[in-house]
Amino acid sequence: MSSSERIRVVQYGLGPIGLMAIRQILARRDLELVGAIDIDPKKRQRDVADLSGLRRPSGIRVSDRPQEVLGVSRPHVVLHTTGSSLEDVFPQLIYCLEAGARVVSTCEELLLPTVQQPELAKQLDRMSKLKSTALIGAGVNSGFVMDTMAVLASSPCLEVRSIRVERVVDASTRRGSLQHKVGAGLLLKEFRRGVRKGELGHKGLRESLYLVAEGIGWKLDNVTERIQPVLAGRSMRTKYVSVKKGQVAGIHHVCRGFRNRKEVLNLDLQMYLGAKKPVDRISIKGTPEVNLVFEGGVAGDEATVGLLLNMIYGVLDAPAGLRTMIDFPMPRFRAWE
Amino acid sequence: MSSSERIRVVQYGLGPIGLMAIRQILARRDLELVGAIDIDPKKRQRDVADLSGLRRPSGIRVSDRPQEVLGVSRPHVVLHTTGSSLEDVFPQLIYCLEAGARVVSTCEELLLPTVQQPELAKQLDRMSKLKSTALIGAGVNSGFVMDTMAVLASSPCLEVRSIRVERVVDASTRRGSLQHKVGAGLLLKEFRRGVRKGELGHKGLRESLYLVAEGIGWKLDNVTERIQPVLAGRSMRTKYVSVKKGQVAGIHHVCRGFRNRKEVLNLDLQMYLGAKKPVDRISIKGTPEVNLVFEGGVAGDEATVGLLLNMIYGVLDAPAGLRTMIDFPMPRFRAWE
Repeated sequence: MSSSERIRVVQYGLGPIGLMAIRQILARRDLELVGAIDIDPKKRQRDVADLSGLRRPSGIRVSDRPQEVLGVSRPHVVLHTTGSSLEDVFPQLIYCLEAGARVVSTCEELLLPTVQQPELAKQLDRMSKLKSTALIGAGVNSGFVMDTMAVLASSPCLEVRSIRVERVVDASTRRGSLQHKVGAGLLLKEFRRGVRKGELGHKGLRESLYLVAEGIGWKLDNVTERIQPVLAGRSMRTKYVSVKKGQVAGIHHVCRGFRNRKEVLNLDLQMYLGAKKPVDRISIKGTPEVNLVFEGGVAGDEATVGLLLNMIYGVLDAPAGLRTMIDFPMPRFRAWE
Repeated sequence: MSSSERIRVVQYGLGPIGLMAIRQILARRDLELVGAIDIDPKKRQRDVADLSGLRRPSGIRVSDRPQEVLGVSRPHVVLHTTGSSLEDVFPQLIYCLEAGARVVSTCEELLLPTVQQPELAKQLDRMSKLKSTALIGAGVNSGFVMDTMAVLASSPCLEVRSIRVERVVDASTRRGSLQHKVGAGLLLKEFRRGVRKGELGHKGLRESLYLVAEGIGWKLDNVTERIQPVLAGRSMRTKYVSVKKGQVAGIHHVCRGFRNRKEVLNLDLQMYLGAKKPVDRISIKGTPEVNLVFEGGVAGDEATVGLLLNMIYGVLDAPAGLRTMIDFPMPRFRAWE
């Protein structure tokens, strides 16, 4: 493949996920890294290869000026990995769309923003269509195991009475930011305060629930959400945090959806240090029953980067607009060599 | 929903799957049965409700004249369940398309006919586009567990080295035609003759293999197929067949795909009477590994009918042409009440 045919990619956000993505982009012949954006002053002007632990310089230096990078480098696709809150990242997404780029973002609240943030969703959809481009929220969760997979798994059913998805993640195998997000190492009191302030828990669980409901055509009349601590049964220490026995090891986060007053959807997410049996389990009560298990669970950060990279071709094929994981051709690994 | 908004459906083929579909169509408010076609003289002119074991007459009588039924009833969608061989059912599909109907068919060879029957595929695609309609091959297998599911399951992978799908079906829980198709009750000699003549084995396993390869963008340089008997360890009897110890209980059918001389795809299908642990298992070697299991397997004929019915909305939404399970919005259960 000649250089002129490569897909021009900008990496927007250089946390652990963004840096893993950089390593992938640089290793692939079908992709060309044309820019990198991050606001961290310690990263500014550094070569992204260096930041990613690669020896050979890439020639791409980190900039904190998104509009300049996007305007000069004219990417086909932006991989966006800066945050979970749609309100926070909204201006960044608009910069990308204004530059005519297609966007794959790990922002959990972008998975299906039409329900909870209809005004922002409308603006993103309008801008993408104006610029004949597309954007999508993608990731392993939200975006795959607790929603998209559940939607496809319902295909053989003549009737669906309820869907339950259970995800157990051993947070000790994950990046530091995730360990902090689940409250590892906090006292119970601190955990409760963090939950009240909206600082702890998994962003996007509601979006996953709404995506399943929308996928199979259910109108929900009520949705509830509950975040509880999982306490450490013993002292533990990871690269990023240390937890004493009785302190918080992580979260148990449950989101329920009701239809005609019956519970029809239940997303049950446990992420804590030392979880013994990581698993993803989709159970559909109906005709026939479907019991789908990812043995060992879908492994964390690598899987997130995998989904991000694989959706590059997805978003390039998508019709213009704000898209979801279930409304254009099926997500899948794309061979590139 | 008012009667005028219902989806007009013709059921083409009234074997066990077709009759199960009839019961579903008649039970649903969003669908209206407008015709039924079968060549069996014993079914001609009978009310389909009666044939399906329902008490209340439907007013729809079986006809063996497809063009007449399709021309008069003007269906939006035809559910087509007459056979596995594309060559055999080709004229029937053309009748449906000529009448402007969209078609969901359980014909296994229609799953991805472009590879092995490119000429027929081209004609079907051309006719669908000419008539602004669409057709698709769908079913639980081919169509779901051994192909579509494997494609979606690869989404988190940065790299895929190989994909193996194993399906174990207890044929004693399935319809008689399937028990005969797997050779249950035959002597070894008869089984071998049946395999040579192409009368035994699962049609569509190659198509499933090619669908996975096409889905993730692999060009295969070789494909092999092997059908072996599974012998009965004890005497068994079902509603449809009796098998003595040492006779054939079913098949072990394996299809392998090679790329750069390495085996990269392996579809392993066991369907026999008395199989102890029915299961569907998708194993992806790569980064990360993905191990997906349908515990207990995806239950047989109900699941096939479920897929058929659920794809009605899929094929109505699809762009004109010959489509596959992976190239338009994600298959899923569609709530209708």
